[in-house]
Formats: sequence, structure tokens, C-alpha cells
Amino acid sequence: MSSIVPVILCGGSGTRLWPRSRADKPKPFLPLVGDETLFEATLSRCAAGEGFAAPVVVTGQRHLAHVEAQLGDPAARVVVEPAAKNTAAAIALAALGLPPETVMLVCPSDHHIGDCAAFAAAAQRAAALARQGRLVAFGIVADRPETGFGYIKQGAPLGDAGFAVERFVEKPDRATAERFLAEGGYHWNGGIFAFAAGAFLAELERHRPALAAAVREAVAAGRAEGRRFHPDPAAFARIESESVDYAVMENTDNAAMVHADMAWSDIGNWVALHEALDRDDAGNAVRGRAELVECRNVLVSSDGPRVSVIGLSNVVVVVDGDEVLVTSAAGAQRVGKLAGAVDQ
Amino acid sequence: MSSIVPVILCGGSGTRLWPRSRADKPKPFLPLVGDETLFEATLSRCAAGEGFAAPVVVTGQRHLAHVEAQLGDPAARVVVEPAAKNTAAAIALAALGLPPETVMLVCPSDHHIGDCAAFAAAAQRAAALARQGRLVAFGIVADRPETGFGYIKQGAPLGDAGFAVERFVEKPDRATAERFLAEGGYHWNGGIFAFAAGAFLAELERHRPALAAAVREAVAAGRAEGRRFHPDPAAFARIESESVDYAVMENTDNAAMVHADMAWSDIGNWVALHEALDRDDAGNAVRGRAELVECRNVLVSSDGPRVSVIGLSNVVVVVDGDEVLVTSAAGAQRVGKLAGAVDQ
Repeated sequence: MSSIVPVILCGGSGTRLWPRSRADKPKPFLPLVGDETLFEATLSRCAAGEGFAAPVVVTGQRHLAHVEAQLGDPAARVVVEPAAKNTAAAIALAALGLPPETVMLVCPSDHHIGDCAAFAAAAQRAAALARQGRLVAFGIVADRPETGFGYIKQGAPLGDAGFAVERFVEKPDRATAERFLAEGGYHWNGGIFAFAAGAFLAELERHRPALAAAVREAVAAGRAEGRRFHPDPAAFARIESESVDYAVMENTDNAAMVHADMAWSDIGNWVALHEALDRDDAGNAVRGRAELVECRNVLVSSDGPRVSVIGLSNVVVVVDGDEVLVTSAAGAQRVGKLAGAVDQ
Repeated sequence: MSSIVPVILCGGSGTRLWPRSRADKPKPFLPLVGDETLFEATLSRCAAGEGFAAPVVVTGQRHLAHVEAQLGDPAARVVVEPAAKNTAAAIALAALGLPPETVMLVCPSDHHIGDCAAFAAAAQRAAALARQGRLVAFGIVADRPETGFGYIKQGAPLGDAGFAVERFVEKPDRATAERFLAEGGYHWNGGIFAFAAGAFLAELERHRPALAAAVREAVAAGRAEGRRFHPDPAAFARIESESVDYAVMENTDNAAMVHADMAWSDIGNWVALHEALDRDDAGNAVRGRAELVECRNVLVSSDGPRVSVIGLSNVVVVVDGDEVLVTSAAGAQRVGKLAGAVDQ
């Protein structure tokens, strides 16, 4: 049985974790949870030799230096996108460089997964379905009525490995999310997918022929440079920017899902990061030097200065160089709109 | 009519405004309210030529460099205490260097007074009573049931200038403070006093003869050095540490008070400073660079980094070099107990 090729997507700017995440050093390249960066942890989860082949990283010129500094495996390949064109194009770029029967495991590089064994097991189940020609999404166990994620409605079982997909659901409103949770059978779409390279490309051709043709052209006119591959910028510029969910997963008749109960978080804002960290009995978490007095559910993250906090609850304090952020938990959703986050 | 000699007391460490106020640069020497430091503003209020003679500053070796850097008046004199011995000794040191009939106006150097004209008028009323042999305290109009200050109970009128003192009251509990406010006739003891040098020394001899003798000895064995005067350290070391309130004001039969409605604040903690600053319609005050989103009654004071705050009320954020403080308004009382404030 052939190894799975991890396809690591390294894009995005991530203003919601400003000021720690900056335009010139965004979220994937920061050690937000453990000692590894999120990108390094993503690579570690798919390390070669444990059923995985060397990875393909798809990234932009802007992040290339960070990618290459943190990419350990000398056999890894790097596709350097001339522009950000969302996930359908990024995955197609990787697929075109692989034999058709190769199973790709598409992973965002800015999520946290607490239970790596559960991730590995889900990856093997997904690969088994992918080898049967399925396009497989990871369905993350939904434990709260979250409105920030898309959902996957589970269909009929497909043996022991997973399930057919009844349908993909866009981000719901609060009432709908609560109904999903009560009803059961709905899972978060974590943006992790497994499929054979050929099966993916065939579905892309079918549902988005122009997009598929443009990516083929960008690859045909592209150039290799050591382990880097540079698609042709002019051809790439014509590519429609679309997510793999919209372009392929919602349209294919072969969608499947596997359950993934693996302490997953998209670390989508400071409160999500707080929840992914070890907390003390009062719910406080500290990265850096801090003294907390009469605090509950406070997150302090400092890159140097000591932070002293007295008498606060549900507050996040971040110190990063010339920027200090202090927000209520509810306010964490608005961090990306701050002048400091917008103007960088 | 002779001029009043301001006696400016520059002692204390002031941990309650940590981390802006540090052991090596405490509260009097910081521009906490306007562009002037509290010490500079104290000097400005008593500037020579407006009924005031050149001041005498009583301070310690530790603060001498700051005092001399900020002390504009070349005619000012500086008494350098070999140790901190509280206010009775500090005032006696100044009094022994003045002709007995000279009216001294004793001023702490770490308070804020918003209405300088009201201060000047109160000083003239106090000086008039001092010239009649009275020992005069400034009674600050009490507008809330404050438990952090001593009180002065007003007695019979003494002409137009002021009142006799019925009694001095130590810091009351909350219920007592509320009763004082409801009853009326109680004023905060702001630590500002006026008396003739000779009258003060006579009362000190009467009520604290050992303390008075020790200060005389320290002065007799002291040495002048330009405008500085250094009391003898060995003699000074024997002086009992006592406040002017306990040693003299509570014991004398000649105590008087003047009303002082002058937007006074002791800037006793970060919340008190917040109240002394200009605030916007939402009650927010900013010193330094900041962006406040959905905040009420927030104080931000930063010495450099931009501070972004979202969704908080009644919170103080202070950035000072390698220290960041974030406290609830209620927690501001506990700032002096933080490790950073204690360990400096």
C-alpha cells in the first residue's frame, strides 16, 4: 500500500491573532501552542516513515523564507504560488505533480490538533476511502453550536472507515447551529481532505473545467528551481479564486467523510488559542512572564515584558514588540479590525 | 507682609503607581497629569514673586538628582535627609533654617491640584491665620465617603479666613466615612499645612521634646554644600519617625483649618490618576498611543507601544518599559503588592 503524500497549505495572513501574528510572520510560523510552530507541528503529524511520504508545501513568495526555514525534510517539495488563489487551485497545483493514484492528505498549516494518534488513525481511514475513489473530508466532532465553521451532514456508512456525505452546509446562524448540535450527525468541516490526485483532478475538470485548464497551463509553463516549483505567473493570474469546498467537494458524487475526534482547533482567534492551551484551575493560561492576581479565564501572552493582571475575568492580554492588545473574550472577534491589524 | 516660604516634601517611594512609578524614579518626578511632573507643578503653584519666597525642598539622597534636575529656582534650598524620618522631622529641618516669624507652607510634592487660583487663595487665608500664631491645615472638600484619608472636623469660625479644628480623625471605616459625608463639617486632611517656623518648633518642643532636640542636634552638626544642607547622619538616625499630624497637629491647642476646594487629588492609585485626567464622553483617558473600541472608563498610559483595547470597562492598562500592568479599577488598590512593585 503506497504512502500518503501530505499536501500542506501555507497561505493566509491571519489578522485575528494580531499582534503576535503579523503580515510578515503570520500564524503558521509561530509557536502558539507548544514549542513547535503550527506549521512545524503540521509537518510532524505527517512525518515521513509513518505511512506518509515526503510532503508538498504550497505557499506564496511572501511566506517562502519562513517555510524553508522551518521545513526540515530535505525531500519535501515546495510549490510557490505567484498569487493567492484559494484552495482549489493550490490543491490542483500539488495534484498535477503527483502520479494519479497517489493519495494526497490536504492539511491547513495553521490549525492545532491535540491528539495526534487520533489524527493518524483518521488519516488512515480517509486514505482507505480515497483508494476506493472517494473524496474524503475530515468531520470534526462538533461539541458546541459554533457559527464560524461549515458543517458536514453525515450520510450512510461506507464500511468501517467512514460515511457518505449527505451534504455540506455553509456557516450556519446560531439557531441552526444549535439545531445541528441537538439533532446530531453534523460535523465541522476542518478543511482536511484526502483523495487520489487523479480523482481530484477528474472532479475539478468536471465541475470547474476553466480553473483546471488554467492550473494545467500554469504548471506546463512553470519552472523548477531545486525543490521549488514556480507555476507560470501569467497563466496563474487567470485562475479563478475558489475554495476546494465550493469547487469540488460540494459538487462531487463521491464525497465521503471520516470522524475525527482529535482535539482540533483552528486557533481562529485569541479565545480559541486560550482554549487550546494548558490552563490552571482558574482557567488562566500564561505564555511568557506574568503575575495574575484574582483572575479567571485570563490569557497572557508576552514576548518579553512581564505582565501583571489584577481582578479580571475573560480577558486576553498580548504583548508583542511595539504593540499591546487587551481584549474581552467577546471582543477577540474584532481584533482583525483594529488599526494595528489593518494597517500592517 | 512677608512672603510665604514653600516647604516641599519630596519623600516616599510610591509603589501604588507602579510600574510607571519606580523606586529609582518615583511619582513626584513623573508628568502624570499635565506636561509638568507633580514636583514641578508643586513648585509652579508656589512660584516666587506671587506672595511666595524661594522654596525649601526636603528630600533624600535617593531623589536628590531628580530634585535638582527639576528644581528651576536658583534661590531654592535643598535639605538632604540622611534617612526618611517622616514629616515631623522633615518640617522641623526646614523650620530650623528659617527666621521664627517666617510663614512656612508645607506641601507634599506628589499631589495634583486642578484649581491653582483656589490653592493660592487658600494659602493666603492660611498664612493670615499662621501670622496669628495658628497651626493651619488645609481641609479638602470631601465629596465622597473616602476611607483612605484622615479627616478634620471643623470647629468655630476664626474670622473670614478659616476655622478652629474641633478634632483630627484617623482614616475612618466606610460607615463612619458615610456618616461624615452626611453630617457635613468634615474635610479631608490633605497634608498641606501653614504655620510660622517658630510656632511650629515651639509646639514640637512641647509635645515631642526628644524629637525636637534630635533635629536641632542634626542641624547643629550638619554641613552646608552650596544650596544643599546635609543634617548630621548620626544625630538624624536617632530621630523618631513620626508624622506631623501625630506629633504636632493633633496635640496643639492652636490648630486651625482653611477650606480648600481646589480639585485636589493625592493621585493615590491608578484610579485616582484616571479621575484627575481629561476623559472623553465614555470616561476613557489615554496617555500615549492607543486605540479603544467599545470601552468605558478605561485608562491607558503607555510609554511607547501602542495599546489596543476592546470591550472593557473600568480597567487600567499601563505600559512602562519591561512591565505591563492590567488591572480592574477595584484591583488598583493592590498594585503595590505585586511582585514587580515589591521586588524593585
